[in-house]
Amino acid sequence: MNTEYLFPAMTVGVCYYPEHWDKSLWEEDLRRMLDSGITVVRIAEFAWSLFERTEGVFTLDYFDPFLDLCEKMGMKVIFGTPTATPPAWLTEKYPETLNCDITGVKYRHGMRRHYNYNSPVYWEKCEIIIGKIARHYGNHPAIIGWQIDNELNCETDEFYSEADSAAFRMWLKERYGTLDKLNDAWGTVFWSQTYTDWAQIFVPRPAPHAAYNPHLHLDYLRFVSRSCLDFCAMQAKILRAHISPDAFITTNGMFGHMDNHAMTRNSLDLYTYDSYPNFAFGLDVKDIEHNLLRDRWSGMKLTEVRSICPHFGIMEQQSGAGSWTSRMDNPMPRPGQMTLWALQSVAHGADFVSFFRWRTCTFGTEIYWHGILGYDNRDNRRMGELRDFAAKMKKLAPVCGADYAADVALVRDYDNIYDSELDNWHRRVTRQSEDALFEASQLHHTPMDMLYLQPYTSLEDLKKYKALFMPHASIMTGEKAGLLESYVRQGGVLIVGCRSGYKDEHGRCVMEPQPGLLKKLTATDVMEYTLASPAEEEPYAIWNGRRMPMPVFNDVLTPLKGAQVLARFGSSYYAGEPALTEHHVGEGRVLHLGGALSREAAAMILEHLGLLEPFAPVVSAPQEVELALREKDAEKVLFALNYQNKAMTITLHQAAQSLFDGRTMQGDVVLAPYEVQVFRL
Amino acid sequence: MNTEYLFPAMTVGVCYYPEHWDKSLWEEDLRRMLDSGITVVRIAEFAWSLFERTEGVFTLDYFDPFLDLCEKMGMKVIFGTPTATPPAWLTEKYPETLNCDITGVKYRHGMRRHYNYNSPVYWEKCEIIIGKIARHYGNHPAIIGWQIDNELNCETDEFYSEADSAAFRMWLKERYGTLDKLNDAWGTVFWSQTYTDWAQIFVPRPAPHAAYNPHLHLDYLRFVSRSCLDFCAMQAKILRAHISPDAFITTNGMFGHMDNHAMTRNSLDLYTYDSYPNFAFGLDVKDIEHNLLRDRWSGMKLTEVRSICPHFGIMEQQSGAGSWTSRMDNPMPRPGQMTLWALQSVAHGADFVSFFRWRTCTFGTEIYWHGILGYDNRDNRRMGELRDFAAKMKKLAPVCGADYAADVALVRDYDNIYDSELDNWHRRVTRQSEDALFEASQLHHTPMDMLYLQPYTSLEDLKKYKALFMPHASIMTGEKAGLLESYVRQGGVLIVGCRSGYKDEHGRCVMEPQPGLLKKLTATDVMEYTLASPAEEEPYAIWNGRRMPMPVFNDVLTPLKGAQVLARFGSSYYAGEPALTEHHVGEGRVLHLGGALSREAAAMILEHLGLLEPFAPVVSAPQEVELALREKDAEKVLFALNYQNKAMTITLHQAAQSLFDGRTMQGDVVLAPYEVQVFRL
Amino acid sequence: MNTEYLFPAMTVGVCYYPEHWDKSLWEEDLRRMLDSGITVVRIAEFAWSLFERTEGVFTLDYFDPFLDLCEKMGMKVIFGTPTATPPAWLTEKYPETLNCDITGVKYRHGMRRHYNYNSPVYWEKCEIIIGKIARHYGNHPAIIGWQIDNELNCETDEFYSEADSAAFRMWLKERYGTLDKLNDAWGTVFWSQTYTDWAQIFVPRPAPHAAYNPHLHLDYLRFVSRSCLDFCAMQAKILRAHISPDAFITTNGMFGHMDNHAMTRNSLDLYTYDSYPNFAFGLDVKDIEHNLLRDRWSGMKLTEVRSICPHFGIMEQQSGAGSWTSRMDNPMPRPGQMTLWALQSVAHGADFVSFFRWRTCTFGTEIYWHGILGYDNRDNRRMGELRDFAAKMKKLAPVCGADYAADVALVRDYDNIYDSELDNWHRRVTRQSEDALFEASQLHHTPMDMLYLQPYTSLEDLKKYKALFMPHASIMTGEKAGLLESYVRQGGVLIVGCRSGYKDEHGRCVMEPQPGLLKKLTATDVMEYTLASPAEEEPYAIWNGRRMPMPVFNDVLTPLKGAQVLARFGSSYYAGEPALTEHHVGEGRVLHLGGALSREAAAMILEHLGLLEPFAPVVSAPQEVELALREKDAEKVLFALNYQNKAMTITLHQAAQSLFDGRTMQGDVVLAPYEVQVFRL
Repeated sequence: MNTEYLFPAMTVGVCYYPEHWDKSLWEEDLRRMLDSGITVVRIAEFAWSLFERTEGVFTLDYFDPFLDLCEKMGMKVIFGTPTATPPAWLTEKYPETLNCDITGVKYRHGMRRHYNYNSPVYWEKCEIIIGKIARHYGNHPAIIGWQIDNELNCETDEFYSEADSAAFRMWLKERYGTLDKLNDAWGTVFWSQTYTDWAQIFVPRPAPHAAYNPHLHLDYLRFVSRSCLDFCAMQAKILRAHISPDAFITTNGMFGHMDNHAMTRNSLDLYTYDSYPNFAFGLDVKDIEHNLLRDRWSGMKLTEVRSICPHFGIMEQQSGAGSWTSRMDNPMPRPGQMTLWALQSVAHGADFVSFFRWRTCTFGTEIYWHGILGYDNRDNRRMGELRDFAAKMKKLAPVCGADYAADVALVRDYDNIYDSELDNWHRRVTRQSEDALFEASQLHHTPMDMLYLQPYTSLEDLKKYKALFMPHASIMTGEKAGLLESYVRQGGVLIVGCRSGYKDEHGRCVMEPQPGLLKKLTATDVMEYTLASPAEEEPYAIWNGRRMPMPVFNDVLTPLKGAQVLARFGSSYYAGEPALTEHHVGEGRVLHLGGALSREAAAMILEHLGLLEPFAPVVSAPQEVELALREKDAEKVLFALNYQNKAMTITLHQAAQSLFDGRTMQGDVVLAPYEVQVFRL
Repeated sequence: MNTEYLFPAMTVGVCYYPEHWDKSLWEEDLRRMLDSGITVVRIAEFAWSLFERTEGVFTLDYFDPFLDLCEKMGMKVIFGTPTATPPAWLTEKYPETLNCDITGVKYRHGMRRHYNYNSPVYWEKCEIIIGKIARHYGNHPAIIGWQIDNELNCETDEFYSEADSAAFRMWLKERYGTLDKLNDAWGTVFWSQTYTDWAQIFVPRPAPHAAYNPHLHLDYLRFVSRSCLDFCAMQAKILRAHISPDAFITTNGMFGHMDNHAMTRNSLDLYTYDSYPNFAFGLDVKDIEHNLLRDRWSGMKLTEVRSICPHFGIMEQQSGAGSWTSRMDNPMPRPGQMTLWALQSVAHGADFVSFFRWRTCTFGTEIYWHGILGYDNRDNRRMGELRDFAAKMKKLAPVCGADYAADVALVRDYDNIYDSELDNWHRRVTRQSEDALFEASQLHHTPMDMLYLQPYTSLEDLKKYKALFMPHASIMTGEKAGLLESYVRQGGVLIVGCRSGYKDEHGRCVMEPQPGLLKKLTATDVMEYTLASPAEEEPYAIWNGRRMPMPVFNDVLTPLKGAQVLARFGSSYYAGEPALTEHHVGEGRVLHLGGALSREAAAMILEHLGLLEPFAPVVSAPQEVELALREKDAEKVLFALNYQNKAMTITLHQAAQSLFDGRTMQGDVVLAPYEVQVFRL
Repeated sequence: MNTEYLFPAMTVGVCYYPEHWDKSLWEEDLRRMLDSGITVVRIAEFAWSLFERTEGVFTLDYFDPFLDLCEKMGMKVIFGTPTATPPAWLTEKYPETLNCDITGVKYRHGMRRHYNYNSPVYWEKCEIIIGKIARHYGNHPAIIGWQIDNELNCETDEFYSEADSAAFRMWLKERYGTLDKLNDAWGTVFWSQTYTDWAQIFVPRPAPHAAYNPHLHLDYLRFVSRSCLDFCAMQAKILRAHISPDAFITTNGMFGHMDNHAMTRNSLDLYTYDSYPNFAFGLDVKDIEHNLLRDRWSGMKLTEVRSICPHFGIMEQQSGAGSWTSRMDNPMPRPGQMTLWALQSVAHGADFVSFFRWRTCTFGTEIYWHGILGYDNRDNRRMGELRDFAAKMKKLAPVCGADYAADVALVRDYDNIYDSELDNWHRRVTRQSEDALFEASQLHHTPMDMLYLQPYTSLEDLKKYKALFMPHASIMTGEKAGLLESYVRQGGVLIVGCRSGYKDEHGRCVMEPQPGLLKKLTATDVMEYTLASPAEEEPYAIWNGRRMPMPVFNDVLTPLKGAQVLARFGSSYYAGEPALTEHHVGEGRVLHLGGALSREAAAMILEHLGLLEPFAPVVSAPQEVELALREKDAEKVLFALNYQNKAMTITLHQAAQSLFDGRTMQGDVVLAPYEVQVFRL
């Protein structure tokens, strides 16, 4: 594996559940799909009960007639493994296969994803059913790809079953070898937590407060990720042994407590995502402060998806109101939004967009999770949008396989992501800075990527970018620091914030001045630091006479030899002290911000680096419009997306041809509400 | 049974607990009660421990001397069965009798209502104790009636014990016969939920989210109701076998997850309610937006009670501050409020009002649930109000057995009530519309009833009303649609709202255009619908130039042949589209509102129908005053209730005689703060 | 025991964990401590795993080299028993030693204080380890004192294990002898709760609502206290048998559900407290309405500590930001605050101040609970404050052993504290009045003490004060009423509020007019009372034309013979009725306030009594500055503490010498931000 699958053409798909409908509807459904431009359907990912109604009694042929129909009519199929929903008989007979909450209350049959990854019985049952399915369907000519499970780590990404504790112990034995090493790594001398027998170790358990040993918790999250990846790898291995070599293997969604990058690299040919931007308009969303960014926050997720797989697919693209009967309340997408959001996915790198779902289910928990068609099966407004979108996808042929263009990247790694989950201080600064950077990126039309530092990340991966923001890498290793130094020495710009470099790989604090291993790069020292108290005004700094908010947390910087002070604090007892420094290292430079990024700070730093508004020579656009560029060879395609329910005007400073209608435009171009225009530059 | 019990005269009672007091107080207490106008006491409903201190050892004679004293002094008694509070020995020895939370944590001895209805042991123990009590006390001449248990389904109306799962399976077997039928009804093909053995079925259990199969949940609530009704019927049967044929059987309170109508019809002679309007002024009530309606919301409950039993009783009428030591914080009723609320009950149909309680308990959880008397046993202000009220009740003799008069009714059925509990969309529109209709009814002096569509509901039941609002009957059956059609054809007006008719009896969506089975009546089609997003302004429609709010959810209506458009949306992307239509059917008509009712919409529709402010020819009153009419034969008695802490003026347009002071009045009449006037028209 | 330990000099200490650091750091750490003025270190209180790594295998010599080093260098040591953190092997092998939540979910190894006090196994294991430690270290010359456990009842003060129920039964048998007496005391006839076997009795267990029998709950809290005190006494007894007779025994912290007074009297030589005023500036503190009092609220706790032990110690004084990784978010103390808060402790009576902790831990849950030094071990700003504070402590020698001076005390007793926990009404009025009194005391520079009525409290204890506020003694006994009467007769002033005297020792309401046993003292009767409804404006009274808020609850007073009306209600239906009365009894008088204290009412009453602003002849100070006086023999030392981040001016009306710089001052004296001045008067 480890080869990136590329779609041969811009492709439109849909999720379909043959088993939910009378068989008499199948042919007409396929005909209507094909007529509207759909060429791929995903099926079967919740169908275990159909395949194995009782233990060991297999009825594998249910989908045969449907697949034959697809083959006959020219529809391609992505086939799912059914492990997200074990049958009732399985979990009743083997309750050890169930996940539970931290108090040990088991999640019972009746929803989905109630199993744990570490039950030997569940592995065995999964191996059997996947093997059966792979052998039965693996070479059907209609099938172009396979989806493993459904939304791994969705519903919950925490696992507390006995099987998890047992597997956690095994994983720790491999990792540490001896209890002495584990005790040292976890600092168990604190609060008399020393372990003297492996059997004393468990996944997190109830305590008077949820104040777990943070080093144990960090390892626990690594272990959860590993469990999930192993489960995925097991499935991929079985599939690969039986399915057509041309078929790709993927999974869908993007959830927490798992290394999606390693999973994709190790087990998948393609990563696909489920995109539901309409949550931003739902009843359960109260706190979106900036109306300009509601559904544009999905771009943050798409940016993360792109870091996993540059030319990804969307396995589930929202086509209607989203809601379970008991949870989540999205309105119906307004006219144009379904197309807008699908093109948002394409602008960010998707070459395959599959809508969820063909027809709204008439029973079960998801009767309000609308498909394109309603219960009544009639042609409707959203069918019209589907046809329009499919026609546009054909015109987007030049985009297929093209890269999203960005000079700036947000740098992350899983150690810091996991560490920041239990650690309030780490989490607060991280959320603040990452959100602020994305906001600045969107509002100032400055495309941004994400870059995950993985063991296999190379200097070439970093050198794709002119500047890297790694705001709060509390955990820093020599290996990563070395990679960053090489990047800077060869001309890169690195921006780090407060709370950097003070932890080792176990999340223990290093007995050195901050920013620890980054000190050589930043040429700074941190003697004072503090959370911003709610009893004070929000801290700020002054940079060239301009006020720059410094929210959440402040490191007061002491510049060492070679560092220049760019900005100084303007508030609190450290007013006048350095707040932002710059240090030239080799051909590049390192900026150290003594705080978390505000939106203003992110924009001011990008401006200082000459990286703000890179499209300015070509096009001017208001904040309400997102600009994105995909390029391949000499071909450059510019997307302009209007997220507002009103017309917006952009100004082309050079002639450009619309891919959709072929017209060449220059000067002011009006985008209708929710309209997207795509120009060949 | 099934005969409605009628009180021979307007009756005043009180709840009394002889076992809470030194026996030396009994005679004086009864004397003071009789002197103040009380003629009935309710006793014994929490006294199991007194009757059966340890298993099988019965001491049934505790209340004999008290009852003899009552007989001697002329006090009548309602006697309760003690099943709400099993003794400690019972639940300790038989923990399977306990109810539990959804995670299986049992509710232990120490409060009340901690048992489940389905434990065979509990049934057996209840049958024994009720039989013993009924035989011992059943023919005591002081006893006029029996109360079954206390507040069935109070404290909790959810049941998760093992006995409940076992009984649920039995009930489902009876209902569906085969698992195939059950799987089909519940749509278990969704998420691989198919059941292959009855033993796999449970009442709802923990899951990653409380997103249960909605069809299972609907049946679960029906089952909870059935369990409660069976338990009540068991008690009624035993009582009826032993007690005096003249004594009535009742129960008190009105709680959720039970078909109070069927229970009353099947097992009771009389339904009584516990009325505590003072919650509206308590510390735990934050969100009563409209001060005019605080304690008038109790009228909504009384309206529901009236639909169960037109001439009901109040078993517990608030007489003081209400609070447990640890929960619920009502202030003391202000001078006049105790009488006001008692007359609110009478105005709505009560012929019997029994106050809770005689003297405030000096120990236990309810030391702050005040009776008329305080701990100090002295005559007090509220004793004065009791005497005043009792005197008024004598003057209200013409009201006894008279009906509450209303031309308009809100239509409900239990299927839709249960369905709307788990279903967020259904619940939101239902709450909005029902509240808005009641608000409009109160503020515009337009009396309203409720009408429950039950299997035994007849066309005559419907024809009592000129107009029926059935705002959001998501579940619609052919039988009910037929009944509604007959009603309309014979001249009735039916008003339905959005989200009507799209579900079948299992709560599955029908594959038809909405409003499904109601389409023929409404002559409308719904192609577009949406929740109102918090990102948009509140939707509205325009009707004859007036703005009509259309909150929560909108159906965009397409009028079919015969339907007229009355109002059109004024907002969102469907501005200009029909929002309210009218369709003449036979002698009647059907209005279809593409939304949930706002208070304004309810009033505008009533005005359109000529049903708003029916008392206008007789009396004008400000919004702060409730008007109610009870009528029997030619007798019409008008109640005017001032809920405000300030004087209010009503204007009689014709002469009317006050029942309280005999004066004939006309023109302006000033109601003192909290004053109620009652006129013979 | 029972002798109050007095520090021979003002002493500065620090908490230190030798086991957290490489041994090579020990000597340098001790040197730096001594150089900065620290003379005492506390160690070893979480070190069980070091002493007994597996069951019965003891390695007691770990701290020997450290103690020898201390002896050599002249550092004194307080040594802790390690029972707050049992080793993993212990709780895994003996899960019955664990505490659990009310549903029975056990608190597992991994945090601290997860044990219960009543497990026989845990007692045995504790007795063994304490005996071993006491024998090994008990006579080391460096050790001056011993700390029992760590923060008893911290993390949780509720206990629900099986061992607790078993011990509760035993305790109840001793207390009541027979079940009949228990049933009577608990009013179990209510709701059929009668117990017929001791085995039916448990600590509180899950119920449909947390509405436990309040009398059981009152006894439960007494029992929790007794369990904790017995556990502490067991440790003290073992220690005393082995340690040096010169060494003191103490414990630290001050937590709920325990009689700290009796514990100190019975088992300790000294009480020490852990003072963390910086919570007042943390992210989790939203609702500090009055910025003037943020960190001054710690003074309320110090006042309580002083009532336990007049010359107490601070075992943990905040020196840095406080936070666990997952909870609690304090900023770093601003320059000056560390010293300010340490002097706040001294002003309130501490002669020993030990900072938490020397160096910030680099691993475990408390990496953000900062010590004086950071992870990098460099000298820093807070080290400078430490040296400054230590120097000041030397100059405060005249204060050593001096008493805090107050003419006014808040009277409490544990019965009412425990009763007010479950009882909403009792709790609400108590919190309101106690907070208001403290606020008035602080803002009007009127020093206040607390006085707990204990079985051993004498009339002399009361006579130290000119006035006693006992705002809401719902529970009143003849003994306490008698003591209060003697106090008043001999010239004292007693102020009581609403809800006084209506409960007996079991928390049952007495069948008498309120205020029950206090009626003779107040010469008042209460016929009407009510919670203040949120539907009304806040109640108030008028006193000499001034408006006095009467929040939360009102008793309408009827003055009896001898009582004068001072103020009358100005609002609600009892406007014009008496709200505050005064009754002369012997040489003294009793004020009865028909409500909870507002800050204004507290100040007006103090003013009426001539007790407001007692320092006015000597010094004037703004509300922002706290004044405190410590006196011994003829020596009077005045503290002026500026809690603001800005300069404040006080005015000395007589010459006074600064203890810090020796200057004699008069007239205006400017206090810098956070500055404390101390004057010899």
